[in-house]
Amino acid sequence: MTTLTLTEIASQLGGLAVRGDLALQGVAALDTATPEQISFVASAKHDSRAKTSRAGALVLPSALAEQADRPCLITDNPLATFARITALFHPEAAVQPGIHPSAVIDATAQIGPGCEIGPFVHLGAGAVIGANSRLGAACVIGTGCEIGANALLHPRVTLYPQTRIGARCILHSGCVLGSDGFGNALENGRWTKIPQIGRVIVGDDCEIGANTCIDRGALADTVIGRGVKLDNLVHIAHNCQIGDDTAMAACVGIAGSTKIGQRCQIGGAAMIIGHLEIGDDILISAGTFIGKPLSKPGTYTSVMLQQAHADWVKNAAHLRHLHTMHERIKMLEKQISVLNTETGTSS
Amino acid sequence: MTTLTLTEIASQLGGLAVRGDLALQGVAALDTATPEQISFVASAKHDSRAKTSRAGALVLPSALAEQADRPCLITDNPLATFARITALFHPEAAVQPGIHPSAVIDATAQIGPGCEIGPFVHLGAGAVIGANSRLGAACVIGTGCEIGANALLHPRVTLYPQTRIGARCILHSGCVLGSDGFGNALENGRWTKIPQIGRVIVGDDCEIGANTCIDRGALADTVIGRGVKLDNLVHIAHNCQIGDDTAMAACVGIAGSTKIGQRCQIGGAAMIIGHLEIGDDILISAGTFIGKPLSKPGTYTSVMLQQAHADWVKNAAHLRHLHTMHERIKMLEKQISVLNTETGTSS
Amino acid sequence: MTTLTLTEIASQLGGLAVRGDLALQGVAALDTATPEQISFVASAKHDSRAKTSRAGALVLPSALAEQADRPCLITDNPLATFARITALFHPEAAVQPGIHPSAVIDATAQIGPGCEIGPFVHLGAGAVIGANSRLGAACVIGTGCEIGANALLHPRVTLYPQTRIGARCILHSGCVLGSDGFGNALENGRWTKIPQIGRVIVGDDCEIGANTCIDRGALADTVIGRGVKLDNLVHIAHNCQIGDDTAMAACVGIAGSTKIGQRCQIGGAAMIIGHLEIGDDILISAGTFIGKPLSKPGTYTSVMLQQAHADWVKNAAHLRHLHTMHERIKMLEKQISVLNTETGTSS
Repeated sequence: MTTLTLTEIASQLGGLAVRGDLALQGVAALDTATPEQISFVASAKHDSRAKTSRAGALVLPSALAEQADRPCLITDNPLATFARITALFHPEAAVQPGIHPSAVIDATAQIGPGCEIGPFVHLGAGAVIGANSRLGAACVIGTGCEIGANALLHPRVTLYPQTRIGARCILHSGCVLGSDGFGNALENGRWTKIPQIGRVIVGDDCEIGANTCIDRGALADTVIGRGVKLDNLVHIAHNCQIGDDTAMAACVGIAGSTKIGQRCQIGGAAMIIGHLEIGDDILISAGTFIGKPLSKPGTYTSVMLQQAHADWVKNAAHLRHLHTMHERIKMLEKQISVLNTETGTSS
Repeated sequence: MTTLTLTEIASQLGGLAVRGDLALQGVAALDTATPEQISFVASAKHDSRAKTSRAGALVLPSALAEQADRPCLITDNPLATFARITALFHPEAAVQPGIHPSAVIDATAQIGPGCEIGPFVHLGAGAVIGANSRLGAACVIGTGCEIGANALLHPRVTLYPQTRIGARCILHSGCVLGSDGFGNALENGRWTKIPQIGRVIVGDDCEIGANTCIDRGALADTVIGRGVKLDNLVHIAHNCQIGDDTAMAACVGIAGSTKIGQRCQIGGAAMIIGHLEIGDDILISAGTFIGKPLSKPGTYTSVMLQQAHADWVKNAAHLRHLHTMHERIKMLEKQISVLNTETGTSS
Repeated sequence: MTTLTLTEIASQLGGLAVRGDLALQGVAALDTATPEQISFVASAKHDSRAKTSRAGALVLPSALAEQADRPCLITDNPLATFARITALFHPEAAVQPGIHPSAVIDATAQIGPGCEIGPFVHLGAGAVIGANSRLGAACVIGTGCEIGANALLHPRVTLYPQTRIGARCILHSGCVLGSDGFGNALENGRWTKIPQIGRVIVGDDCEIGANTCIDRGALADTVIGRGVKLDNLVHIAHNCQIGDDTAMAACVGIAGSTKIGQRCQIGGAAMIIGHLEIGDDILISAGTFIGKPLSKPGTYTSVMLQQAHADWVKNAAHLRHLHTMHERIKMLEKQISVLNTETGTSS
């Protein structure tokens, strides 16, 4: 078990240690932390839970520095600081360089120094793996793929041929990159497959969730920028371009050829149709359907909230007749206007 | 082929056999059953299809006992009885104890007696597998995982390190348990990964669908209760707690830190946002978006039903102007009130 | 690099070559094509981009033949023709017959001539693989499965026992066919599993996307017709029947026992509830919820489009009170009618 004093943490990560020092043995949430653990308050509004927390130390935002009632670390961004403290107490397992004897590595594949290649990994012809990268068990890396240095592929990741992954990327189990885009031409009621000859290109520092799918481009490439974070079960269709530092929560679907800007945040299960342009700094609420382009930074939403089923039945019927309802209102307004004239009333 | 008489079935499973006996060779739906097969009527309302069914025997609810026109088994819960009869005719393949020579088992892993470990399975350090459990081909079990007795993992399941699975659980192909929760802190427009140090804990008698994902907790654990049934392509985010006997149909997404009660039933593609509390015995309709907490048992819904596209175009435009529509109604009411006063009308 | 003249292409694929010949080295989109490449115009409305394209040659629809300003191939269906030209320049990698020594093949499995079986493949007892089929790395084929000739299974596909796949099918990585349908009977608040004894039957010429799931039938089979195209992360529940040539975009979910006709096109993230009948030639828009049967060919829709969040807040509140709004309009109409009578106004 790692032990670190608050002063040691401050000297490693920055921030101002106040109200004394103590030895800490780990991190926890406010409500479960013990006196040997450090917790955090993300912003001023979480203050009430902090008061009753048993945590031995807290990371606090500057705005709450005055209220420090125990050893605290004051920083501009308590959540980010807490993330780094967590990493100090729970460092990632060290890379154990070596190639498991069960792995099948094509003779022309290149594996950088310090890599860890797990059991049942298959590396195709010409694949290139950067230094110190880890490939978990049963990963399948197609011919001509390139993976940057210090990447982490959890077990059972598939990269189709020619896929490129940047440095320090984390790919979670079951994700599939480079599968054929959904391209078919209709001919007399039947489908002819359109070969998908583009690639998937993923920038540095991305994280791709479990069972997430990113299709290769039809003619050009599907491009995922630097620092993009995709949660589980996300679908990115062919030819999409996702800007740097954009994040998507689970179950999001992006249809083909849509271009999304930088620093966007897309809530879970949101869906964006194809061939749209979404600008920078756009926030999309969970469950929202985006059917038109968006250029102005801000938050966009389109969900219907739950009702008790009986209430929904009463209301939902009218959803199909809003146009009629609107026409009836217009007619009423016209009639009122006539009545007002006839009776000399001004309202 | 198994042959069982109706009397033998009744003696094994309970229920009242009426109107004679016969030898049966299998189960089928009402509309396809032959005279050698048994079918069932779940409740009184399916009666009409039963009349014309060629099934040699039927499982009937007590309410229909009077209408038995052939050998029948009368039980309180025909569907559950029929499930058990199906299992009699189609018993699960017996466990074939042994470890396939291609499996890679860490020297410190413990495998209980009677287990069947398939080809290309990888068991990490310290993993513990309970007695008589089966691990299908290409399952990857991380270090420190624990799997209860009599569990069934279909091929290609991933358990990240430290995941715990109860006894008699069934995990379908492609599911991923214990992947990192989606936790990132924003710093000057870029994301810092928040280490996810919690685990996934799954109770006894759960079933997890194909390609379903359950993320490990950020600080505390993600907890799936006893008897929980999850269909395919479900996403359970970090820190969720799912109560005993709750069932979720396919494509459901539950965002982080949401707590769901016992015996809930969540329809396909429903989405529940994060940090909510959902009580016991809540039914959520398919496709419903849950954005607020729910405590009162009952059914909740929020979908918009399909329309012919041209009708939708006419109606959907008004969805964006409901507030204006409401304001116009208020104005009309005010004007009518003035008119009524002016003209001495009381309506 | 392949080089083909326009005349050679026309002689192989049909179509009318006009305005001269040239040697071509590949295909590209209008906006990126170079003078050595051929591009295409799908229909008359894309004309403006063609004018400025640097492409050396174009595939044009007959309607634009008059406007050919460079060597062109005139065909009835430019997209389909372009798909075939793409395949000429980018032929699929040839099958490399052979069984990788790491594969585990049951002694009773039958592998047709010319098949390519990748590393870490597991073939169960009695599995039958048609001639010239390819099984990518780490595919798991259950006992009694049948795969037609010339099929292509990308890496990490799971077929549960008894699944049947037609000739020339393409299955993408991570897809799971034949997993148990979601069938459970409620007994005193707990679930009893209903054994799923049907199979999954897939016709010829289908394509199944990455991480897509198709469940086996409960009693009868789940049946996917000929030429069906399913994108990534689609869920097809037990007992569904999908008609020939129907296509579904990513993230679609079809609940149990629903029957869908031929030549339907289902947009991304659409959801169809169970036990419905959907006719032939039905088009369903992306994100649409289908809660009622559909028989008349045409397009159906049910989405709510995004709004700026503040606007949504104002409007969404009224969604829960449409019934009341409707009642208020009815009351206004009654009052107006009384007023009209009293004042002798006819509007």
